Amino acid sequence: MNQLTDALHIPDTQSERDQRHLAIQRVGVRSVRWPLTVRVAGEPQSVQAQWALDVALPAEQKGTHMSRFVAWLDSLQAPLDAPELQAQFGRMLELLHADAGRVEAAFSFFVRKRAPVSGVQSLLDYRGRWIAERVDGRTVLWAEITAPVKSLCPCSKEISDYGAHNQRSEVTIRVELLPAAVDGAQALQWTELLRYAEESASSEIWPLLKRADEKWVTERAYENPKFVEDLVRDVALRLNADARIGRYRVDVENFESIHNHSAWARIER
Amino acid sequence: MNQLTDALHIPDTQSERDQRHLAIQRVGVRSVRWPLTVRVAGEPQSVQAQWALDVALPAEQKGTHMSRFVAWLDSLQAPLDAPELQAQFGRMLELLHADAGRVEAAFSFFVRKRAPVSGVQSLLDYRGRWIAERVDGRTVLWAEITAPVKSLCPCSKEISDYGAHNQRSEVTIRVELLPAAVDGAQALQWTELLRYAEESASSEIWPLLKRADEKWVTERAYENPKFVEDLVRDVALRLNADARIGRYRVDVENFESIHNHSAWARIER
Amino acid sequence: MNQLTDALHIPDTQSERDQRHLAIQRVGVRSVRWPLTVRVAGEPQSVQAQWALDVALPAEQKGTHMSRFVAWLDSLQAPLDAPELQAQFGRMLELLHADAGRVEAAFSFFVRKRAPVSGVQSLLDYRGRWIAERVDGRTVLWAEITAPVKSLCPCSKEISDYGAHNQRSEVTIRVELLPAAVDGAQALQWTELLRYAEESASSEIWPLLKRADEKWVTERAYENPKFVEDLVRDVALRLNADARIGRYRVDVENFESIHNHSAWARIER
Amino acid sequence: MNQLTDALHIPDTQSERDQRHLAIQRVGVRSVRWPLTVRVAGEPQSVQAQWALDVALPAEQKGTHMSRFVAWLDSLQAPLDAPELQAQFGRMLELLHADAGRVEAAFSFFVRKRAPVSGVQSLLDYRGRWIAERVDGRTVLWAEITAPVKSLCPCSKEISDYGAHNQRSEVTIRVELLPAAVDGAQALQWTELLRYAEESASSEIWPLLKRADEKWVTERAYENPKFVEDLVRDVALRLNADARIGRYRVDVENFESIHNHSAWARIER
Repeated sequence: MNQLTDALHIPDTQSERDQRHLAIQRVGVRSVRWPLTVRVAGEPQSVQAQWALDVALPAEQKGTHMSRFVAWLDSLQAPLDAPELQAQFGRMLELLHADAGRVEAAFSFFVRKRAPVSGVQSLLDYRGRWIAERVDGRTVLWAEITAPVKSLCPCSKEISDYGAHNQRSEVTIRVELLPAAVDGAQALQWTELLRYAEESASSEIWPLLKRADEKWVTERAYENPKFVEDLVRDVALRLNADARIGRYRVDVENFESIHNHSAWARIER
Repeated sequence: MNQLTDALHIPDTQSERDQRHLAIQRVGVRSVRWPLTVRVAGEPQSVQAQWALDVALPAEQKGTHMSRFVAWLDSLQAPLDAPELQAQFGRMLELLHADAGRVEAAFSFFVRKRAPVSGVQSLLDYRGRWIAERVDGRTVLWAEITAPVKSLCPCSKEISDYGAHNQRSEVTIRVELLPAAVDGAQALQWTELLRYAEESASSEIWPLLKRADEKWVTERAYENPKFVEDLVRDVALRLNADARIGRYRVDVENFESIHNHSAWARIER
Repeated sequence: MNQLTDALHIPDTQSERDQRHLAIQRVGVRSVRWPLTVRVAGEPQSVQAQWALDVALPAEQKGTHMSRFVAWLDSLQAPLDAPELQAQFGRMLELLHADAGRVEAAFSFFVRKRAPVSGVQSLLDYRGRWIAERVDGRTVLWAEITAPVKSLCPCSKEISDYGAHNQRSEVTIRVELLPAAVDGAQALQWTELLRYAEESASSEIWPLLKRADEKWVTERAYENPKFVEDLVRDVALRLNADARIGRYRVDVENFESIHNHSAWARIER
Repeated sequence: MNQLTDALHIPDTQSERDQRHLAIQRVGVRSVRWPLTVRVAGEPQSVQAQWALDVALPAEQKGTHMSRFVAWLDSLQAPLDAPELQAQFGRMLELLHADAGRVEAAFSFFVRKRAPVSGVQSLLDYRGRWIAERVDGRTVLWAEITAPVKSLCPCSKEISDYGAHNQRSEVTIRVELLPAAVDGAQALQWTELLRYAEESASSEIWPLLKRADEKWVTERAYENPKFVEDLVRDVALRLNADARIGRYRVDVENFESIHNHSAWARIER
């Protein structure tokens, strides 16, 4: 349909002036499911993302243009790596005539892994998240991963004659991408964040394990006990050593096997 | 408001005749949150339930009376034990002029437990569910519990030089109450179903454990390894030995600590 | 790793004999996330599925081979249409030495739609599900879709001087595929099930609507009021007229805009 | 068990010194389900809360005392109104020897409402949340409610010859309690926050409505159309006029009936 005709014949209520003198920091759409291509280990991977898109609305404007968010999603073409996200996010703000706003896309992605002894391969699912935000004229990109790992309790090992309670844990790392992390040969990869998480755990995990692998994981975790506090600190140490990363937030949640609740820790910088 | 006046002045679209010649097996309301009092270990406990209420609708009737379901909920007074559920469910069918229907209430409840060594007390949360259904002129009551427990893998223990992977598991038991289970001194208790689940696991769990308790749970699980298949069979053996129980369904889900997925098993009778 | 060597050196606890004389109807893995290619409107579409895979286990067998389920997932290559699902499911049962079992894959998929007046295009997300099961020597395939639609209340329209309450609804259709639906020129398409759902609603919905489209949807729904009972019956009439479909189950849930709960109806055949 | 004995005989790994020189801002337990009594409209109401409890951990300390969080929950006795939360939160920090920390309890609660015309009564469920946090030596209390309401689109009403799309919405209001809101005759009530949300919507909603009430709600919403931007601004105006409230955050989410996604807006002060 011709947009001009549309504007001429149908009232445009959203474009009226608002009299309440109240700016809205964030307004837009949420829980939009839309496909997305990300680059994982160099390869484009087609994923299904859940999007939240919003902009700031000045006090005098009655409403934003909700349909433009969806039109923007439909215009995305190239794999969304950090430079592409930055460029497209800038274009979204232009389309919405906004000087502040935010894009967030949450998705699952897969990485092919080899079991530690048998070498059998399988696909482990991780969660990822892209965030671009512009506040006070400054644009920031954040990348986030959540990796499932195994934690084994040092206290339980120490005090017990045999065995030690262990459980599945989730490590979530959200990092601000400094310019060096965005582009070029040193651009930060999803898989680097995954390794920071997995190498800090009692053991990493795999979907497909033969018995020899299961023995390896069991013993590896037993030799490598970690409190939730150890895990979060060990990830933070890795991030502190990476000059491409600005602010960050690390969350670790242990789905305790001796309780019906979680142990949890967070370090933010 | 006077119902008669209501009927006189406002069209009653739902009561019209339907021409499609299609009966509807189940129609009603879902995701209704409403308080509920259940009896746990002899004591009334106030819980917050999520309800699904529905009835069969004959082919010639256009719609059911949705508001009567909510009015029925508001009329519940006494603690909902099995005899009360049976009586109230019959009354719901009458209010809806229905000869078939179903009530389902899902809720969490708490049981005070003592840690195995220190004796410190805390409240563990379980999930419960009441179901009453009338099909082909016969009313059946079902009780269901979900108990969190700990499972430890026999294979991992057997093949590893030390340690064994273990994890939180959930055992769900749904049983048909035979007349002996409904009423009287032998009425089936929620806590009996919980014990069937907990005693079949590698170890039961507690919210509050001192170090001596943690040692006990760790060692107890190590001495008592169970596959998901063992756990579901051991629960089924307990149910087979209980003459108050008719049909049943047992589900066990292990939130595997060496994978990012669950092992799962079901036995139905 | 060589399986023979594996068997020689490491105890194989799962293969031991069980003494409890209790068969397990279903045992396997759940909440496995794994990619999947489905065919939508003739085109292969890469989606991210959540899988549940299980088999029956005879009374004398201690455990199933959990890792083979994941190995089977990793072996899937071709787009999973009905004939491919049937073939692969048969192969899974062979791998597990099982004479009964079940595969379930739940996923979201997208269909490109044109807005009703402006013709602007966007991608609407639907949920799909493949189920293959073998019980008593007979294999059955089920296809399921969930479509978001709009429902408008006939009673509210009739009794009000202006307006009528309306809301988002979900229509879920699960159908048994008869041989004619599985293969050949008449094979049942996901999009056919979607049309049965959308054409039975007060209005279908789109992610991207211009003002002229919004007017069309608003008026279309007002002209076409439907109780939850109407919606479920109208879908059932469509399924009754499709000779490729055997048993079916239709669920409609209205997320009522005048209540904080849902109206819901189900017809099964 | 005697704590002294415990300390003598069993190693206390958590109390060791940590060498990584990294403080942890927040460490504790999450997803703990525990009962809670809140005061709603002057009456104590027993609810089932999900708790997250955490404290700051200095760089030199290896671990926190996880079990003390649960012991603290078990010690709560009196209804948790704002002064009681403040006092108990202080006591939790003492138990954990922490100078910063946080308590969060999320729960559902019920309010008895009368339908607008018929006066029939029913219980509507809302969500509530208590947060107490101590950062930089200052303690802040936050109260949050989420109220389900109805929104009707002004644009759809304006451009359509009849009808207007409408839907269920959720209004979430989180407010910082200034001293006047905590204690005394002017203490802020949950029901006041609910009224700010409900009176800003196109219409409030009820679980139980007779036909005359349904007519009232339908027409009331049609006469009172609101964009998500209007709703969030009208709530903010109400909060701006309440001198007991410090910082706040208002979220409104419309579960759009013409899309499969939400419109959403936030104002923060």
